[in-house]
Amino acid sequence: MTAASTDQLSPGSQFDVARYLAEARRLTLDEIGRYLPAERRHTGGLYDLMMDYPLRPAKALRPALCIASSLAVGGHLDGVLPSAAALELFHNAFLLHDDVEDGSEKRRHEPTLHKLHGVPMAVNVGDGMLALALDPLLDNVGALGLGAALRILRVFARMARESAEGQMLELHWIRARKWDVRDAEYLRMVHKKTGWYSFITPTLVGAIAGSAGGALREALARFALLLGIAFQIQDDVLSIAGAEADVGKDALGDLWEGKYTLILLHALRTVPPAERDEALRILALERGPRAADDGAEGRPAKQEADVQWLAALVRGRDGQSLRYALRIAVEHARRARHLLDTRLESLPGSVHKQFLAALVDYVIERAN
Amino acid sequence: MTAASTDQLSPGSQFDVARYLAEARRLTLDEIGRYLPAERRHTGGLYDLMMDYPLRPAKALRPALCIASSLAVGGHLDGVLPSAAALELFHNAFLLHDDVEDGSEKRRHEPTLHKLHGVPMAVNVGDGMLALALDPLLDNVGALGLGAALRILRVFARMARESAEGQMLELHWIRARKWDVRDAEYLRMVHKKTGWYSFITPTLVGAIAGSAGGALREALARFALLLGIAFQIQDDVLSIAGAEADVGKDALGDLWEGKYTLILLHALRTVPPAERDEALRILALERGPRAADDGAEGRPAKQEADVQWLAALVRGRDGQSLRYALRIAVEHARRARHLLDTRLESLPGSVHKQFLAALVDYVIERAN
Repeated sequence: MTAASTDQLSPGSQFDVARYLAEARRLTLDEIGRYLPAERRHTGGLYDLMMDYPLRPAKALRPALCIASSLAVGGHLDGVLPSAAALELFHNAFLLHDDVEDGSEKRRHEPTLHKLHGVPMAVNVGDGMLALALDPLLDNVGALGLGAALRILRVFARMARESAEGQMLELHWIRARKWDVRDAEYLRMVHKKTGWYSFITPTLVGAIAGSAGGALREALARFALLLGIAFQIQDDVLSIAGAEADVGKDALGDLWEGKYTLILLHALRTVPPAERDEALRILALERGPRAADDGAEGRPAKQEADVQWLAALVRGRDGQSLRYALRIAVEHARRARHLLDTRLESLPGSVHKQFLAALVDYVIERAN
Repeated sequence: MTAASTDQLSPGSQFDVARYLAEARRLTLDEIGRYLPAERRHTGGLYDLMMDYPLRPAKALRPALCIASSLAVGGHLDGVLPSAAALELFHNAFLLHDDVEDGSEKRRHEPTLHKLHGVPMAVNVGDGMLALALDPLLDNVGALGLGAALRILRVFARMARESAEGQMLELHWIRARKWDVRDAEYLRMVHKKTGWYSFITPTLVGAIAGSAGGALREALARFALLLGIAFQIQDDVLSIAGAEADVGKDALGDLWEGKYTLILLHALRTVPPAERDEALRILALERGPRAADDGAEGRPAKQEADVQWLAALVRGRDGQSLRYALRIAVEHARRARHLLDTRLESLPGSVHKQFLAALVDYVIERAN
């Protein structure tokens, strides 16, 4: 790591997660810029639109995790930035496609790209970003050598597969109206989705770019998974607990979509049978009221009152289900911290290791 | 090439393009099957849905081009089949996403996947197929060596970029209502889209898998481009000329979408000013009547009568514009054949070279 990069990623006296995130984000955006072609005639504005989502305010947790993991194991900033850029391009491409798929109106407080430029352009910009993400990953051959470059490509391929499998698993449950999902089944789904996509892949790719050995890579991937599960559960808690106050975003979106959360599963297990039956009746309804062209025409859809009733149910009984979920999130965070103190204890002290440690509290304590 | 594979891809006495296509398709589907995991618990049916589109009747021109190109330069079937499988997975993933994007009802005479299973599943199955396509391309390292495997990956990345650029170029023209597009500009767009996507990439990847040298690769890519341009123009001619009889598919879809074709551009250049003005008025309208959620709400849309008027215009004057386009298609096919007789003359005689030669007539003479 160069003196310049140490300075760029140095913390204040108390660890400032937001500052580390912001600096990692800036470095990653600069790196993405290096992969955009200088000559843009006859490209219809493709490359300008590619930068729209990445330049909107965002935490950019994935590239920060990737950079921290790599530098914590002794890697060089130059060796990891291409992979961080690929992760960020990949993620923003998926956001573009998700927004089209869900018919979302806003992304990061601004209109979604398909609202601004139409569905065909938005889908196509996403496809272009996925293509562009391959360039830094192929350039890794020169910077990191063949073995590491291929290993990183395989992690990306596996991540895309695991996410698709996890997503199908959840869609399959929704379609089959399977609501007797056990916590272990739910956690396996989260492992595949949030786990692989947002935590394991950035961390593992960073570790590979930093030439970490097998045991260290495995410990970091495990740390990332535990962190990811804690993050996802806290996300679900914020979505339910925060929705009353936060009218700016899709309030109670998880309940409209019938998304699986530990909170909802716990409530379904523990409320009286009559309330459970009513909840299952509502969950069997289509998303509504603004269902897209998803083959759901004509089928009965959820109404505002249905979703509010569900929200009251999962928040009710003194927040018992919310507290249950939060307890499991904290337990996973605790195990992540324990890993830092045991299998990852040998990592030398650095701001990057400090960032990883600070993230354990951050995922639980963050307010958004 | 083994005796078995020779037999599998052998022609009858007169060259049977359909038979070669069918055999190449079968080999490619078998190869895709090898990349599907045997263990499919906890995957929500992802891998079964991945095979839906590939198993529907289709020409499967791309894998056939790839295989023929590779075997024509002396490659082995085993060395090219992984790349052919990747091409077919990639293409079917894009069909899935295109169908969602366009709100299409039918694909290959059956309901589109999102009509059968909803938009989220369809998008997700496509994402899974893109991920799966990486596996054979990474396995190429073992089968073909590092250099060829990386070169093939770079061709895929470039193809995805070129297609996205070409698509943006066209969408940009549509949005800017730019209808004074010169033939050369149109052909550059087709070069990026159909050219790179359906012809150059399969042929070039096949040539690399078959260890062709640089000059041979370049000649084959040039051949593929010429073939692709002829194919695209003939596609446009069939769409306009055949639409009256063929009520089974989206009749006159190109005109509804305001898609750029040589036929339409020629008509706009050559009809009287009053008719040109009326055509431009119609082309400025939104697609209609079944516009998706594309930010076009409230803007005036094309009506059936508008599109019929446009169709009459481009078919009119004794089919002058259709004949003009067809002449350019034939000219490109002629140049492709000339390449076979000159820069590709040194390729030894084989059924695979015969297939490539037969394709030159096929792209012009096919009826669908």
